[in-house]
Amino acid sequence: MSSVFPHRPTPTLERLATPCLVLERGKLARNLIRMSAALSMRGVALRPHLKTAKCVEIARLAAAKPPGPITVSTLREAEYFAHHGWKDIFYAVGLGPGKLDRVVALLRAGVRLVTLVDHPDAAAAIAACAKREAVRFRTVIEIDCGEHRGGIAPGSAALVTIAQMLGANFAGVATHGGQSYGERTKEGFAQVAEAEVTALRTAALRLHAAGFTSEIRSLGSSPTALVGVDLAGVTELRAGVYMFGDAFQAGIGACSLNDIALSVLAEVIGRPAARPNEFLVDAGAFALSKDISTAALPAEQNAGYGWVCNLAGERLPGLRMTRVWQEHGLVVSTTPLPSDAFRIGDRVRILPNHACPTAAAHDRYFVVAGSNEIVGEWTRVNGW
Amino acid sequence: MSSVFPHRPTPTLERLATPCLVLERGKLARNLIRMSAALSMRGVALRPHLKTAKCVEIARLAAAKPPGPITVSTLREAEYFAHHGWKDIFYAVGLGPGKLDRVVALLRAGVRLVTLVDHPDAAAAIAACAKREAVRFRTVIEIDCGEHRGGIAPGSAALVTIAQMLGANFAGVATHGGQSYGERTKEGFAQVAEAEVTALRTAALRLHAAGFTSEIRSLGSSPTALVGVDLAGVTELRAGVYMFGDAFQAGIGACSLNDIALSVLAEVIGRPAARPNEFLVDAGAFALSKDISTAALPAEQNAGYGWVCNLAGERLPGLRMTRVWQEHGLVVSTTPLPSDAFRIGDRVRILPNHACPTAAAHDRYFVVAGSNEIVGEWTRVNGW
Repeated sequence: MSSVFPHRPTPTLERLATPCLVLERGKLARNLIRMSAALSMRGVALRPHLKTAKCVEIARLAAAKPPGPITVSTLREAEYFAHHGWKDIFYAVGLGPGKLDRVVALLRAGVRLVTLVDHPDAAAAIAACAKREAVRFRTVIEIDCGEHRGGIAPGSAALVTIAQMLGANFAGVATHGGQSYGERTKEGFAQVAEAEVTALRTAALRLHAAGFTSEIRSLGSSPTALVGVDLAGVTELRAGVYMFGDAFQAGIGACSLNDIALSVLAEVIGRPAARPNEFLVDAGAFALSKDISTAALPAEQNAGYGWVCNLAGERLPGLRMTRVWQEHGLVVSTTPLPSDAFRIGDRVRILPNHACPTAAAHDRYFVVAGSNEIVGEWTRVNGW
Repeated sequence: MSSVFPHRPTPTLERLATPCLVLERGKLARNLIRMSAALSMRGVALRPHLKTAKCVEIARLAAAKPPGPITVSTLREAEYFAHHGWKDIFYAVGLGPGKLDRVVALLRAGVRLVTLVDHPDAAAAIAACAKREAVRFRTVIEIDCGEHRGGIAPGSAALVTIAQMLGANFAGVATHGGQSYGERTKEGFAQVAEAEVTALRTAALRLHAAGFTSEIRSLGSSPTALVGVDLAGVTELRAGVYMFGDAFQAGIGACSLNDIALSVLAEVIGRPAARPNEFLVDAGAFALSKDISTAALPAEQNAGYGWVCNLAGERLPGLRMTRVWQEHGLVVSTTPLPSDAFRIGDRVRILPNHACPTAAAHDRYFVVAGSNEIVGEWTRVNGW
């Protein structure tokens, strides 16, 4: 399950090289259980999205029956999980013709890769490739349920056209209520969840009337996943960031601050004498990302570039990271800091705004359990 | 100098897996020559900062006499360049006690690593470590010339205290006028450059009066590097982002748009029928970063998440990336797009706001020359 530091005699948070990612195993497990328990009661399969975690150890914990169905955001993730034995993988980004070769290679290797399109030209490219390469794709049509990123409206004339062009490669419909990130209440999440379900049902019914059976009817986002809307007609739910949580998810009420499993370990490297409310740490824009999603939330939920915690992961009131440079983060306190705290060499943990880009800056997780004993070093698959 | 694609029969921009980094060798060379020529005329050594490039092939082109003096932003970079034969490396981020072990290993390996401190506690940790490990550090004191990130004021009482604590490990002074990024004119850059020089001279003179000779007197930032202020008393200049340029550097007048050597190659993966001014590409927040530095500039210089170019690297007027999700970027045109342009599968190149975080999302550069022939694949050293 994890490597055991042949090169580090005492694997503690006090000795890890900084900056690095710390993942709390207990909180991760709790987040995973909450989601899978909620879905198993509702009779819908969870297809966890590994876009945030990008890690086989976490996928094994998140999937109902590993290697059960998973979702990925890049073909590199698909190739990585396929290498680790996964067979049912949904690549949930519109497939461009430039990626067909790699998809064919995965299909030939026995991976039941689900791919996504929303345009007749993309469908035509898939159909031509399938014929030329004598493979069968498993392609779903992306439905726009209101976010207006990718996808076509469920009532769009193109829906049946695309299915016809896909022919034997057609496998179903999928939607993602990404507009849920703009909601702030359970009622708002429920409305978006209803929009997901309605769009999916409408599209599947129209396709059915045209002679196309949607084997896959897939939806989901972390904020909409846990609200109790009726999921009849849905076969699976995709969600990812719920595994870790973050300051933004907590700010909009999709988790609590105490659920956040991911943080960045940093060392105090500056303590300016002239500015008694401030210190500098060695985690900046690269270790945390420049994501400031919480800036859109009420002031008390604005984490700046991150909330500051002690080594035990407890948030320290009044402190937040207000500015970042490439390798520096500036932490500012609402009150002057005591001279015996946050000294050069002291360590803190920073809860990120948005777990996905913060994790993406790092090549591994240091996994802590109990009283911060380090129990694992899990690598990630970044890039494309 | 570069690998040659055993796995890709025709290495062209039309066939590279997207998203990926494209580096124009001609523009890179021109940017490097402009900087080194300007400094050689001024009698100051260039210590190129590899925080942006993080790549040995680029370091060899950027250094006056490779492996000449270089600057790095992480110890992982220092270790990587040391592995490739570099001996004179400045780690230009305040050194915390948690990194002393790795510094000692580099010093023992014969690397003349320059380290940076701005606090008596950090100096004390270095002096104790040097004594315990029987090594000699080469540590400079960070001077704040107005940015108020790290560093002490040149007139600060702590200056001589820190030098005394460092003792034989003291090697000089360094400053960085990072406030230059807030300037918009050559006059503004010149004022910051003067502030850098003045702060450095003041600190070096005070230390000299106290019996400490500053072997290293180091300053620099890309915007201040090319203005013609008198650098008497300065031994070296550090700059990094000038190698690539970016939309922000162009926006503040530190380079021109045509100097930008770095872009992200992306494929059109969405062309919404209902929104004729828009298309989606497969480069989003991860491939470009969420840096929107140009949002602080006048509207005509606001690149959103990036300027859009054709495959030849020519900017396409009226187009910019206005929104990103993890793996999607939304390009919006000021006028409706022709139906035969930006079709599914077409490719564009995106000029980033800020080269440093965009490059950091990728593990390699695809180097193009002349009419976009791909002549190299150069890897990067990311992380810490």
